[in-house]
Amino acid sequence: MGTFDFDPRLLKEIHSAEDLRAVPEKDLPQLCREIRQVIIQTVAHNGGHLASNLGVVELTVALDRVFDLSHDKIIWDVGHQTYAHKLLTGRYEQFSTLRQENGISGFPNRRESVYDPLTSGHSSTSISAAYGISCAQHLQKDPGHVVAVIGDGALSGGLAYEGLNNAGRAKRNFIVVLNDNDMSISKNVGSMARYLTNIRTLPDYLRAKSRIERVIEGIPGVGHGMAQAIRGLKSAIKNMVYRGNMFDDLGFSYYGPINGHDLPALLRTFESVRQMKTPVLVHVVTQKGRGYVPAEQNPGAYHGISPFDPEQGVQPGASDTFSDIFSRDICQLAEHDPSICAITAAMDRGTRLDRFRKLYPERFFDVGIAEGHAVTFAGGLAAQGMKPVFAVYSTFLQRAYDQILHDAALQHVNITLAVDRAGIVGDDGETHQGIFDVSFLRTVPEVTIYSPTYFEEMNPALTRAVNEPGVSVVRYPRGTEGFRPEGFACSSEAFQTVGLPASAVLVTYGRTFSSAAQAQQKLKEQGKSVGLLKLNRIQPIDPAAVEACLACDTVYFAEEGIGEGGLGEHFAMLLLKNGYQGRFVLRAFPNQFIPHAQQDAILKTYGLDADGLMQLVLSGKGEYDGTEEKTGCPAV
Amino acid sequence: MGTFDFDPRLLKEIHSAEDLRAVPEKDLPQLCREIRQVIIQTVAHNGGHLASNLGVVELTVALDRVFDLSHDKIIWDVGHQTYAHKLLTGRYEQFSTLRQENGISGFPNRRESVYDPLTSGHSSTSISAAYGISCAQHLQKDPGHVVAVIGDGALSGGLAYEGLNNAGRAKRNFIVVLNDNDMSISKNVGSMARYLTNIRTLPDYLRAKSRIERVIEGIPGVGHGMAQAIRGLKSAIKNMVYRGNMFDDLGFSYYGPINGHDLPALLRTFESVRQMKTPVLVHVVTQKGRGYVPAEQNPGAYHGISPFDPEQGVQPGASDTFSDIFSRDICQLAEHDPSICAITAAMDRGTRLDRFRKLYPERFFDVGIAEGHAVTFAGGLAAQGMKPVFAVYSTFLQRAYDQILHDAALQHVNITLAVDRAGIVGDDGETHQGIFDVSFLRTVPEVTIYSPTYFEEMNPALTRAVNEPGVSVVRYPRGTEGFRPEGFACSSEAFQTVGLPASAVLVTYGRTFSSAAQAQQKLKEQGKSVGLLKLNRIQPIDPAAVEACLACDTVYFAEEGIGEGGLGEHFAMLLLKNGYQGRFVLRAFPNQFIPHAQQDAILKTYGLDADGLMQLVLSGKGEYDGTEEKTGCPAV
Repeated sequence: MGTFDFDPRLLKEIHSAEDLRAVPEKDLPQLCREIRQVIIQTVAHNGGHLASNLGVVELTVALDRVFDLSHDKIIWDVGHQTYAHKLLTGRYEQFSTLRQENGISGFPNRRESVYDPLTSGHSSTSISAAYGISCAQHLQKDPGHVVAVIGDGALSGGLAYEGLNNAGRAKRNFIVVLNDNDMSISKNVGSMARYLTNIRTLPDYLRAKSRIERVIEGIPGVGHGMAQAIRGLKSAIKNMVYRGNMFDDLGFSYYGPINGHDLPALLRTFESVRQMKTPVLVHVVTQKGRGYVPAEQNPGAYHGISPFDPEQGVQPGASDTFSDIFSRDICQLAEHDPSICAITAAMDRGTRLDRFRKLYPERFFDVGIAEGHAVTFAGGLAAQGMKPVFAVYSTFLQRAYDQILHDAALQHVNITLAVDRAGIVGDDGETHQGIFDVSFLRTVPEVTIYSPTYFEEMNPALTRAVNEPGVSVVRYPRGTEGFRPEGFACSSEAFQTVGLPASAVLVTYGRTFSSAAQAQQKLKEQGKSVGLLKLNRIQPIDPAAVEACLACDTVYFAEEGIGEGGLGEHFAMLLLKNGYQGRFVLRAFPNQFIPHAQQDAILKTYGLDADGLMQLVLSGKGEYDGTEEKTGCPAV
Repeated sequence: MGTFDFDPRLLKEIHSAEDLRAVPEKDLPQLCREIRQVIIQTVAHNGGHLASNLGVVELTVALDRVFDLSHDKIIWDVGHQTYAHKLLTGRYEQFSTLRQENGISGFPNRRESVYDPLTSGHSSTSISAAYGISCAQHLQKDPGHVVAVIGDGALSGGLAYEGLNNAGRAKRNFIVVLNDNDMSISKNVGSMARYLTNIRTLPDYLRAKSRIERVIEGIPGVGHGMAQAIRGLKSAIKNMVYRGNMFDDLGFSYYGPINGHDLPALLRTFESVRQMKTPVLVHVVTQKGRGYVPAEQNPGAYHGISPFDPEQGVQPGASDTFSDIFSRDICQLAEHDPSICAITAAMDRGTRLDRFRKLYPERFFDVGIAEGHAVTFAGGLAAQGMKPVFAVYSTFLQRAYDQILHDAALQHVNITLAVDRAGIVGDDGETHQGIFDVSFLRTVPEVTIYSPTYFEEMNPALTRAVNEPGVSVVRYPRGTEGFRPEGFACSSEAFQTVGLPASAVLVTYGRTFSSAAQAQQKLKEQGKSVGLLKLNRIQPIDPAAVEACLACDTVYFAEEGIGEGGLGEHFAMLLLKNGYQGRFVLRAFPNQFIPHAQQDAILKTYGLDADGLMQLVLSGKGEYDGTEEKTGCPAV
């Protein structure tokens, strides 16, 4: 339990989902205030998602109260807005451990609570997954309800549409709550966003229509039959003169827009739609950051944040990150080359492309949360002679694997992928770790991949990437650059060595080289020596890099990525193919998802920090002692 | 040039895109008849896509005539319906080489013709790519037009929606032609499909509205201004009483539905919408298989087909395929286990799940062309205790990589992926070869992958897959089983050996084992010996399989997949890690896309047939002499 500057007297009495139902309705506004304060103070201390969580407090209270969580399932899309849900389902006591090592996750997690039906973290999946649960319930004759809660931002992802398209034909209760705050992570884009604005500003009498319908629906039994009759009539009229909206067209009875901070209205609405035997879409309008003025005024800045002083609000980061350097360098290249375009999938702030947006608005494209489209769109730009650069987090690029193959590489055109947050991201946890990109990007025919360790290496890598034909990737970690050995000069060669020839060599790339260089020094202090080989371009591997290792007795290979399909396996194959007969020891992440904790702590746990790499050389064992499976969840 | 039983007198005079414009309008119906006959007779001879191509003959003639292909770009979604376009853009002479080795591709191909702006083969990409081209033209001040032609089936893919959502905000001409034939590959599903049916059956006077608008639009200059005024008025009215349809909501001016076989109507419409300065959606209704009665009556059976006798029509295949065996076995398992569900993404015929659909309609789900949704939906079913089996072609599963990670594996629930067409598929070519699945599926934490060689191995693999926790994969090739050495008994162990211990071993899995066994016999006839190791479960690898190779002087590893990230690299790493000091030779596909040809021919070219594997052992070289890059395109 955290310590707060007030007494959350109602909240602290809620120990399970059932307890919420016992709170008198008149006390619910006080409960909402307490939830907001606990969230603000905890996020200020631990970091986390703030604006999205403050926006859905009333919505969560209403859903968790109306639905019977012992049976019914609520699927929150993405899941970065489930703090209130955690507080209301028996996790108030653990809430101070939010996003801490072995503490509760910042996202829904099946292993953490039975009230989290799914583990999530990526966008636009809720409707598909919820519909799967609904179909299973139907087959099992389970009378439970399923609710998917999806933001208007997540609705720009095609998966959400695929889900609507399927679920819209269901012949039973299936509820989608559209949590409309007019934002993705930054300001929402696309014609769907404009359409939702149109609905929100509809003349009142059209709203009245659905209000009447709601009232009728509210009457159980009789009401339902009447509502059906009215719907029959409406649908006849619709085909002639008036038609409902797009969600009606997709098979959903539409209710809304409803003020998402009006708790009585939310309670009434959910009580009512729970009775319906059709797919229903409830359009709820919420305000991101609600209840904390700085977040209300600048919700984008309060999306995912580091610890901050609640009095002062979030302050700009003191030191440069790789994202800053990428932004600086790509803007500089774009100044001299008018064919360079930049693309983001609703992440202009996170990728720091906001700078590019300001400087070259014509050549900047925010496509919404739609990574697949971003790559295919880039393919079109490139086919017509432009040089698109798609900046994206490693974990989200997984959503565009086929587009990278089919719409980028296969076209043999010039496309650059700037892969941010490559490697461990830390406290966002298992859904967000960028540990797959090397493995899946390596399979793309003729791809070139650069993996800078130092800021200074960004510019030459990017310069090559935007000018080379084909798909080029520049991948870089979350955060800033690390240790650099004295006298180490960056090079634009495909690889570099430090202290070779030697009987043993430690091969690394990207940020891991920093730790390797530290390990080398520590070993030296102990009178042990190991050579280093730093791969600057990790695909294709320069044959000379393999050759440089052939005379060694031992080759250690360490990478901050999953071992399966990783570069270490490829390097081992090249060594063996070239007649290498020494030892080979691979250190990489084991075959599992990596739970949340601070970046440094995770690297330490898996032996990928300086100490771990020193131990690697001393012990000669690739598997690290600290690699027993972690779930990232406390015993609840 | 092919030989036909008639004289295509108009068609044979069309040598370039310009020539079409010179054909008098009155002769166009005759031209359409010739195109149909050439397509029917060529596909009967070569195999290919028939129903889809016959449906768009008039549409293609209209588009290729109205738009100036020296400047304007037409992007056909998927691209399996571009035979008429090929015939009209200078490829009549080569058309008899359709889908033949070094002949023209069955899909659009950038390397084949300047009139194919993109290479394609997967669904739902056209709007995104076309919008990329349009944005590039805009930046380049190029006045060219861009048209995306997308089927109603492809419109069930989320990528298409992401594209619409972005392009709908364009402030210039951008044309989407919805080619509505009420089919994906099989009958179309989902609420969008129902919605399109509603539009098609709208009362006439609503059609009249758009007809009036079209007429007004047709008047250049003045007309455009007037149309804008009318649109302004309409949009005001819309918000009060009448609103347009869903495409209007997404920012597209809607025109249609138009009879897709009424050439004058198509020509007038395209002339008109070409003038508009907004995104436009033209809804064209076509009939799949038009002009060939058996295909009209059963378009699903005439989607992608092998050579056939035009008099007799397509006959059922004589021999069983792996798809048949999968279907038989999964139906049998489902009979005894009511929790087994089957999912297809519009491929019930190709995967042979049509049998499951008939037997267990309640537990069968066709989700439309939406592979991402299929996996996420399976995750929901499994989270609620069902055992979903998603049967899908290897190449299309690429579209669900993140969903496999995030919505399946991360949930730690029981999901089975039945990966059909794993390996070379042959004449559909580079967009369809299933050469990536082993590489990308291996990276999924805790996945289990089986790769049967023989029909008999399907049942034990499937039985394990549907009953094991986590994501399990059973992958099998297109076609039937191959050579089986005398006395070889299938086993449900993770691996088997033939002729070990020996000084050299050839490690393979899946269909490649058949060729390896043939190679072993041929070598034996020459007095050479090689042991075989057959991996039945390819992930995780049984440590004993590695151990069995350690004493060998040479380990050959052959796989029908891309080398990067493939199993060979993993095996090499395991050998090296375990102290192996012999030779290692890897034969896999080189780092490129593999063009179309017959399956056998491709395996021969890349040294993965019996002769190639024999040569592998004799020469000791992994790289095959036949691996120079092939584009699959003739010099045009």
